[in-house]
Amino acid sequence: MKRLISCVVALSAAAMILNATNVCAADISAESKGTWIWYPGDYEIWLGNEMNNRRTERGSFYPPYLWRIDSAYPIVEFRKSAKLTQPETIEICAEGLYNVVMDGQRLFGAPQKVDIPAGEHSLIIQVFNQKTPPTLFIKGNAFATDSSWLVCSSEKKRLPEKNHDFEYVSADCWNFDSIEQKPSDFKLNTEPKEAVSRKTAGDGELFDFGRETFGYLRFHGLKGKGSIRIGYGESLEEAQDWKEAETSDWITVDGDNVTNEITHQVAPNEKIFTMSGSKAFRYIYLAADKGVKYDKISMLYEYLPEEYKGSFRCNDEEVNKMWDVGAYTLHLTTRETFIDGIKRDRWAWSGDALQSYLMNYYLFFDKDTVKRTTWLLRTKDPVYCHINTILDYTFYWFLGIYDYYMYTGDDSFLKQIYPRMQTLMEFVLNRRNDNGMVEGQPGDWVFIDWTDFPMDKSGEISFEQILFCKSLETMVLCADLMGNKADHDRYSALASELRAKLIPTFWNEEKGAFINNVVNGKQSDAVTRYANMFAIFFNYISPEKQQLVKKNVLLNDQVMKISTPYMRFYELEAFCAMGEQETVLKEMKDYWGGMIKLGATSFWEKYNPEQTGRQHLEMYGRPYGKSLCHAWGASPIYLLGKYYLGVKPTKKGYEEYSVAPVLGGLEWMEGDVPTPHGKVHVYRDAKTIKVSSDEGIGTLYFKCAGTPKTNKGTLKSKDGEWTLTIEPGTKVVVTLE
Amino acid sequence: MKRLISCVVALSAAAMILNATNVCAADISAESKGTWIWYPGDYEIWLGNEMNNRRTERGSFYPPYLWRIDSAYPIVEFRKSAKLTQPETIEICAEGLYNVVMDGQRLFGAPQKVDIPAGEHSLIIQVFNQKTPPTLFIKGNAFATDSSWLVCSSEKKRLPEKNHDFEYVSADCWNFDSIEQKPSDFKLNTEPKEAVSRKTAGDGELFDFGRETFGYLRFHGLKGKGSIRIGYGESLEEAQDWKEAETSDWITVDGDNVTNEITHQVAPNEKIFTMSGSKAFRYIYLAADKGVKYDKISMLYEYLPEEYKGSFRCNDEEVNKMWDVGAYTLHLTTRETFIDGIKRDRWAWSGDALQSYLMNYYLFFDKDTVKRTTWLLRTKDPVYCHINTILDYTFYWFLGIYDYYMYTGDDSFLKQIYPRMQTLMEFVLNRRNDNGMVEGQPGDWVFIDWTDFPMDKSGEISFEQILFCKSLETMVLCADLMGNKADHDRYSALASELRAKLIPTFWNEEKGAFINNVVNGKQSDAVTRYANMFAIFFNYISPEKQQLVKKNVLLNDQVMKISTPYMRFYELEAFCAMGEQETVLKEMKDYWGGMIKLGATSFWEKYNPEQTGRQHLEMYGRPYGKSLCHAWGASPIYLLGKYYLGVKPTKKGYEEYSVAPVLGGLEWMEGDVPTPHGKVHVYRDAKTIKVSSDEGIGTLYFKCAGTPKTNKGTLKSKDGEWTLTIEPGTKVVVTLE
Repeated sequence: MKRLISCVVALSAAAMILNATNVCAADISAESKGTWIWYPGDYEIWLGNEMNNRRTERGSFYPPYLWRIDSAYPIVEFRKSAKLTQPETIEICAEGLYNVVMDGQRLFGAPQKVDIPAGEHSLIIQVFNQKTPPTLFIKGNAFATDSSWLVCSSEKKRLPEKNHDFEYVSADCWNFDSIEQKPSDFKLNTEPKEAVSRKTAGDGELFDFGRETFGYLRFHGLKGKGSIRIGYGESLEEAQDWKEAETSDWITVDGDNVTNEITHQVAPNEKIFTMSGSKAFRYIYLAADKGVKYDKISMLYEYLPEEYKGSFRCNDEEVNKMWDVGAYTLHLTTRETFIDGIKRDRWAWSGDALQSYLMNYYLFFDKDTVKRTTWLLRTKDPVYCHINTILDYTFYWFLGIYDYYMYTGDDSFLKQIYPRMQTLMEFVLNRRNDNGMVEGQPGDWVFIDWTDFPMDKSGEISFEQILFCKSLETMVLCADLMGNKADHDRYSALASELRAKLIPTFWNEEKGAFINNVVNGKQSDAVTRYANMFAIFFNYISPEKQQLVKKNVLLNDQVMKISTPYMRFYELEAFCAMGEQETVLKEMKDYWGGMIKLGATSFWEKYNPEQTGRQHLEMYGRPYGKSLCHAWGASPIYLLGKYYLGVKPTKKGYEEYSVAPVLGGLEWMEGDVPTPHGKVHVYRDAKTIKVSSDEGIGTLYFKCAGTPKTNKGTLKSKDGEWTLTIEPGTKVVVTLE
Repeated sequence: MKRLISCVVALSAAAMILNATNVCAADISAESKGTWIWYPGDYEIWLGNEMNNRRTERGSFYPPYLWRIDSAYPIVEFRKSAKLTQPETIEICAEGLYNVVMDGQRLFGAPQKVDIPAGEHSLIIQVFNQKTPPTLFIKGNAFATDSSWLVCSSEKKRLPEKNHDFEYVSADCWNFDSIEQKPSDFKLNTEPKEAVSRKTAGDGELFDFGRETFGYLRFHGLKGKGSIRIGYGESLEEAQDWKEAETSDWITVDGDNVTNEITHQVAPNEKIFTMSGSKAFRYIYLAADKGVKYDKISMLYEYLPEEYKGSFRCNDEEVNKMWDVGAYTLHLTTRETFIDGIKRDRWAWSGDALQSYLMNYYLFFDKDTVKRTTWLLRTKDPVYCHINTILDYTFYWFLGIYDYYMYTGDDSFLKQIYPRMQTLMEFVLNRRNDNGMVEGQPGDWVFIDWTDFPMDKSGEISFEQILFCKSLETMVLCADLMGNKADHDRYSALASELRAKLIPTFWNEEKGAFINNVVNGKQSDAVTRYANMFAIFFNYISPEKQQLVKKNVLLNDQVMKISTPYMRFYELEAFCAMGEQETVLKEMKDYWGGMIKLGATSFWEKYNPEQTGRQHLEMYGRPYGKSLCHAWGASPIYLLGKYYLGVKPTKKGYEEYSVAPVLGGLEWMEGDVPTPHGKVHVYRDAKTIKVSSDEGIGTLYFKCAGTPKTNKGTLKSKDGEWTLTIEPGTKVVVTLE
């Protein structure tokens, strides 16, 4: 490797520095690599802020103002030590002002190229940037930037509970694998799309893009002078109601210039004028002044590129459609992070995100978006408020991390985030009442669900304690994975103590169910579904109590019904966990099938089969307040993958997994469930089960009254349930009698 | 006032919005005003970060990495309600994305002009910006932006101790009084300056700019191909020693392009090429490759414009020179904030800043720079480390605020900053030991002073407790000003309790002095000057003990001497407080006169009269490590103003003040001390005292054995001291017998 100049002595040998800074690009080895790295969470918070602040409401910027909004650390230190078997020349690029200290020696200036001799060496690079997160790229071999680099901010080490001066964590990265691909330049992909119909309506024109979509409206051949009012509609009604539509735009054309009245963006009137803000819509209504003309409109569809790794097909076309619409709904809401809905809200919410994560494991298996969302939601230390200000959302955040670990097996993320799990849990623990339970404090939002009738959210709410308990159990599991015995012991004790209180405190023998809450030590009279259904799939109650809950709560119409797909997700999961797939299939066909029958091309924020017409569009007291593309609506892809195809990891990252295919009323079904490096393929009908996989050891579970046969391995039976081990790379066919 | 359109109904009246956004500029009233406003501290922290990160060390960017580095809040809400007697049209401009809610109604887009009808109205504007602080300008009348606007960030209201949801504070502003003058565009002023001499030296050329200066080096007529090494020197020796000089640069000329090797800035080779980084220097040494030529160099002197409101002249030219050099030193170190030194360090340090503030009250009386520095140093809530990580510097921060209030009378700043005083004091209180005293904790730096011999900094240090006690007393005074009775009572009790412990804990009867520290309840053997001298001018010890301290400590050569102008400031103040101006004058002439005799054109970081030659340049183990322009070197301007001219406020903002002119060995002296809206002029010689002032009620104090006469008012005498009331706008002449 070429002209090797020791930069170690750069400070005292001026002539050599020239060599260090003047190495030509050809000197960089062809095999050299690297990726942009940053302080974990920094980029995610910055990018997430950009995303969260793109929301507009009826033409006006609408920020997530009530949330904690963090910034990137303005100064980050990056370091790495490595032993080089041969010398290497590295190329350095940073987003920000930087310095380089090699082997304890400060190099002159901000060198773009440095020659490193063979042997043991260390690099320390500090980057300062207030505009965008400080990031670093080193193109090289041993010193190429990747997650093996360590990073530290000026704040991390000064937390009171961390007294040692320098606490480093592993650097974070994504897929910015060339110097030119600067993280702060990130943009989602776009693709031109045409409207499928155009017609005159009222004083304007109505365009239909065929289904729910998202992106930038474009005008072709815009000319003349005057204004155009643009109504975006997820529904026909909304597009045509400019005054009340949730999103709308307004442009002024004047000869060669077009001005966007929201952003004040003035663009020369090119052949195609693209609006500066991306929007959700299916329909566009344009009302143009007489003096303004355009040839046509089109759009740039904006999306995060995703591979559809999961799949599902069965004999029931309505279910297939449900899966497709669910997948599209999840894709539309998978952006810089997972967001709730694409029209009105466009924010990252922890409760919504947890469901997106789970669906994602059965569709895209996109680890990066889970991580970005988790960092954004968590914000920074010290903690002073709940995630999204919501008590329950703090707990969901913990749960999401354990799910991530189980599905992906990625313990490097766990190591990065564990310190922030600890500090968030401390925040929670410091706010317990005398009984060791959590209650909403001033400034907290106790959300639970949107309900059609008022629900008492005071005192100790059973649902919140169950989430709290599961979060503590998650801390125990993560402490184990971190090898942190002290944390294990502490969180175990806290979890056991709380778990032991749940039934004595909240179970009501007379009602055969958990009551909603306890105020001043007294059980309230109300029973709600939330704690009861979570207790089932968390396995917090005995099979006997599960049956009581099923009868007294889940199948009891006197208990307030759930009308959001958000809680339907868990309600149906509870049924599935009890093996009630047939019930769930009927419910799915009623509920999601109901939306499809009403023409849904993506699933909604809320759906009440008893409503009609425009009622379906209303929410929050606004005629088009409801989002018609909401991530939490997409749960069929999760339920079908996990409880029908029946695939789930039983050891981290599918090292081991179970396959328990249940038709639940279908005649046949077939599909793929993604795993970290491949997939599990499952087919089942009344007589056959076929399973194949790319990795991990699977266990097939099925019930069969007769004596099934298999082409591979040995079937075992116990209590009418059969099991069979699935080795990777083999196609197993089981024939049922 | 023209076309008045009610924007209140903008959402439901599309046609009207056009009027709201299309009002022409001429509609804005000629009397309209406004200034850029922001969340207090946001802009100061952002600007201060930019400044603190301009430090380079031998060509390499050197950030204040160990400090807490904050950012501006990305989202800020601004609001104001006002009653308009007549309608007004406002013009809105923000640095960032913004929205406008008027009278609870969201206006469409981000309107640049809004018509507001007469009557009671409210405006809420939210601004989002991640690149620079969110700021707002409204040009108008009643709604013109100024400090009467209220602001709130997403974080403020969520602090655990502030449970109510919305806590607003007064907006902050400076002098950005037109829409075009965006705060984020702020630059210090510059002015071209020429070198006073140029000569060949070694292989290069040496330029002398005549005195210490600061700015951007410029090349005229640069051409050819090759490199130029640039050595900056506060001294001749440093400039010529490129390898060891604290700051240096390197440029590469190639035909039409010039590349700066530190910033990678490439500039077309214009007639004048200006270096991108500003530097401190008196001398410049250039070593150019043979192929590179230049006609000459010059510089752009960079400075904060300041009016020299204070002045001092006397019969002793050395003292006059001392005042002039001190004033220039303070001006060079008065920048975006007050900084310590201009060459190496260029950072804002709380201990240094406190002294700059005090000097500033006798020279520029620049309130804004005191405020900016105070905000930058404090950073944000929640608190998790000391200011600059230094225990003593946290205490100096409190003291600076009370000084600010006394000198300026500006209680609006006190109201803005009081919440951060409370939270910082809580942080201190939470870290007390069982004895209620402060000790250095892991991660803290217990600085006190640079000393020539080791000093024990463990356990309870007397000096730190004295600063702590004074800080608590400051909290009591500020709580009173805020009308906060609960705080008054709490801090009073804490201050009294600590004050009562000082003498029992630290006073040693045998030594007749405060000892340095107590470890495990046992007094150490060491006596240092710090606690002893502060106890004098804080008036914490009786006149008898003051005399003991003077004899046993201040005049005792066995007690470790002070060699920084930093602590000389307080040592001499202690002498002055005991009326020892003659002693101090001798000391000043020795110490500051000594630097002047060595050719100082600005005052140094450290000076030891016993050293010689290059020793004066060394510090931190580096040959040119010492800063030859350090703010804490400028204290003569404070001492001469406060203890010779003898002027100081006795009620806030010079509502009342005292004038106690003391010649201290001078034959005559004359000068001005600035007050908020004018100045106090003092002349004194052996036979005459002349005082005049623009505001406030002054009391002249002087000693006179005989019977003095006055042209105004009535002289009173008590115990040999005479007093006379000075009314504003009168020239008082007192003739001494």
